[in-house]
Amino acid sequence: MSVTAAQGFSAAGVAAGIKQNGNPDLALVVNHGPRLAAAGVFTSNRVKAAPVLWSEQVLRGGAVSAVVLNSGGANACTGPRGFQDTHATAEKVAEALNAAGVAGGEHNAGEIAVASTGLIGVLLPMDKLLPGVESATAALSEDGGEAAAVAIKTTDTVHKTATAGQDGWTVGGMAKGAGMLAPGLATMLVVLTTDADLDSATLDKALRAATRTTFDRVDSDGCMSTNDTVLLLASGASGVVPEYDAFAEAVRTVCDDLARQLIGDAEGASKDIRIEVINAADEDDAVEVGRSIARNNLLKCAVHGEDPNWGRVLSAIGTTGASFDPDRLNVAINGVWVCRNGSVGEDRELVSMKEREVRITADLVAGDASAVIWTNDLTADYVHENSAYSS
Amino acid sequence: MSVTAAQGFSAAGVAAGIKQNGNPDLALVVNHGPRLAAAGVFTSNRVKAAPVLWSEQVLRGGAVSAVVLNSGGANACTGPRGFQDTHATAEKVAEALNAAGVAGGEHNAGEIAVASTGLIGVLLPMDKLLPGVESATAALSEDGGEAAAVAIKTTDTVHKTATAGQDGWTVGGMAKGAGMLAPGLATMLVVLTTDADLDSATLDKALRAATRTTFDRVDSDGCMSTNDTVLLLASGASGVVPEYDAFAEAVRTVCDDLARQLIGDAEGASKDIRIEVINAADEDDAVEVGRSIARNNLLKCAVHGEDPNWGRVLSAIGTTGASFDPDRLNVAINGVWVCRNGSVGEDRELVSMKEREVRITADLVAGDASAVIWTNDLTADYVHENSAYSS
Repeated sequence: MSVTAAQGFSAAGVAAGIKQNGNPDLALVVNHGPRLAAAGVFTSNRVKAAPVLWSEQVLRGGAVSAVVLNSGGANACTGPRGFQDTHATAEKVAEALNAAGVAGGEHNAGEIAVASTGLIGVLLPMDKLLPGVESATAALSEDGGEAAAVAIKTTDTVHKTATAGQDGWTVGGMAKGAGMLAPGLATMLVVLTTDADLDSATLDKALRAATRTTFDRVDSDGCMSTNDTVLLLASGASGVVPEYDAFAEAVRTVCDDLARQLIGDAEGASKDIRIEVINAADEDDAVEVGRSIARNNLLKCAVHGEDPNWGRVLSAIGTTGASFDPDRLNVAINGVWVCRNGSVGEDRELVSMKEREVRITADLVAGDASAVIWTNDLTADYVHENSAYSS
Repeated sequence: MSVTAAQGFSAAGVAAGIKQNGNPDLALVVNHGPRLAAAGVFTSNRVKAAPVLWSEQVLRGGAVSAVVLNSGGANACTGPRGFQDTHATAEKVAEALNAAGVAGGEHNAGEIAVASTGLIGVLLPMDKLLPGVESATAALSEDGGEAAAVAIKTTDTVHKTATAGQDGWTVGGMAKGAGMLAPGLATMLVVLTTDADLDSATLDKALRAATRTTFDRVDSDGCMSTNDTVLLLASGASGVVPEYDAFAEAVRTVCDDLARQLIGDAEGASKDIRIEVINAADEDDAVEVGRSIARNNLLKCAVHGEDPNWGRVLSAIGTTGASFDPDRLNVAINGVWVCRNGSVGEDRELVSMKEREVRITADLVAGDASAVIWTNDLTADYVHENSAYSS
């Protein structure tokens, strides 16, 4: 399904030879219109990859006719040459689409978004990437969404797609990412498409609302990417103008589905940890506490060892500036309140942590706001995968 | 040498049976005067262990006649009962010292500091700890510093002591800690002693100045303890009143020595990483950037793999609010400037990372302030040790 679930889009995924192992590494998604509306959300890392700097500019125009994505190299920290390479890639896509007479009007580089993922600090092999754009253009298909999702994988073990929608319109998407985002050095790339007939301002509003409570609350390893990119393109091909709330909910559903798939496939992880902070004074407090828990390496090790070590949860809460009284904190692990009033609660032997999903609930007893953050355990496999990545 | 290197102190370390493996687990350090001046620095974690809450109160008086320390249990998150246990421990020490007629005047619980380390959320076995206080009192000796240093070990593989001084006065100290501090869930306990004739205000000033640039800049795993305690006791037994600057430098030297020993013995670590941030706009920026690099799990894995992955350094810098231009950042690893102007610099093949110590230099090109933060690599052994700790 993926990015071609919605009408008005074609896509392709090919092996351009950027990856040395010969796996697919170049994806192309084309919007055939009649609309070319688009919105985007990018990494907040101040060290931004060349394709992020480029695509931020493209998105300012609110129109995107195509997205070209490569795995096998992040094109981050590559200086002026890296930016020139991104620009050349967009020019090449426009040229190839025009030469092939691909529907969607006259393509120009200023409406072509670029996304890259892989190692930082390495220039892309343009002698392979540019011919790959021609191959991808030739391979474009209304069924190409799966192939595109496969081509953007790096250390992902599976490709990730999702769809939602109703009443004649659809939202579809694909994602890659196996380390993480918001947080996310292993870089998250997401492309969502819809055939709903909506303008870029509406798309932007729905996309920002959705990412705020989905991708932004997935924190696998606390490491923020230089390349994170989430794009939403609308073709208007369904001719349907959905109610905003229904559309926003569909976008949120697809984002949430993809975000969960990212956590479920995080590098080396054996557990998906759902951290729910309840009864916080406000949502910011809930998110701050959730993120502090999610980034506590000792807790992540404990979860890996299926050890209901609630002391590490309290220790993480204690480092935040959130409103709470240490002597009133409650913590449940998989529903067992092992910590009550900041001290020993129910018997920790009652907690079973055999399942992949582990639920931690932190009750701040300070208000009525809440938030959910997802993370993973810390494992020897994570260490192995990330100590051998570039060498 | 340890805490009995300075005149006017005795110490002991005994096995009270708090640890199930029968290893030494109770240490006692007594100040015989003539002065009982003291200063202390404690964890900034808002979830504080009972002994921290107790000792903070004791230190307010500026006088400490003895310190009792136990390993085998942190007495953190143990509620009112835990605080009562700490209080009872201090009372027991006063009673035992008075019964034994230990020099230093009439002891009272209000001048006895308590420190604990070990698992959070478990009550201490007082039926073993209190008799242990009597054994420790009986074992007090002017040569007891080493035994005390051994008795406060948890996952430490070696005990840690250091001394400095001149012209008839000495500063000596012991430390435990193998996860970390400032940051530091595996809890750092440090006791420093001196025979210099100084008041508590002077001790406090010297201690805070020393910890700010030593223990506070050691960040092994980003996890802040509920129990971190650093105490400095002065007996005045040398009768010498040193120059403040010379004394402060001796305190700093001992703190720095112990801090380096903590990093060198961090749980599961195979590398000690010295992160120096140079040319920062101010010291706060330098510390913020250094800490962000020190806490980046992906970088810590890369160092473990002896991979000079400077992209992960830039990615960590990019998450901070410090003053810098991403296109002017320079990064050296073991002296090789692998990143220049935010992009590829010298050949990464020139970097050798075989030695245990790895030096990362981040040049912000934004001013003339600098700071050094120490951390460790992230290893499968760290995961193993911390996923099996309490189970």
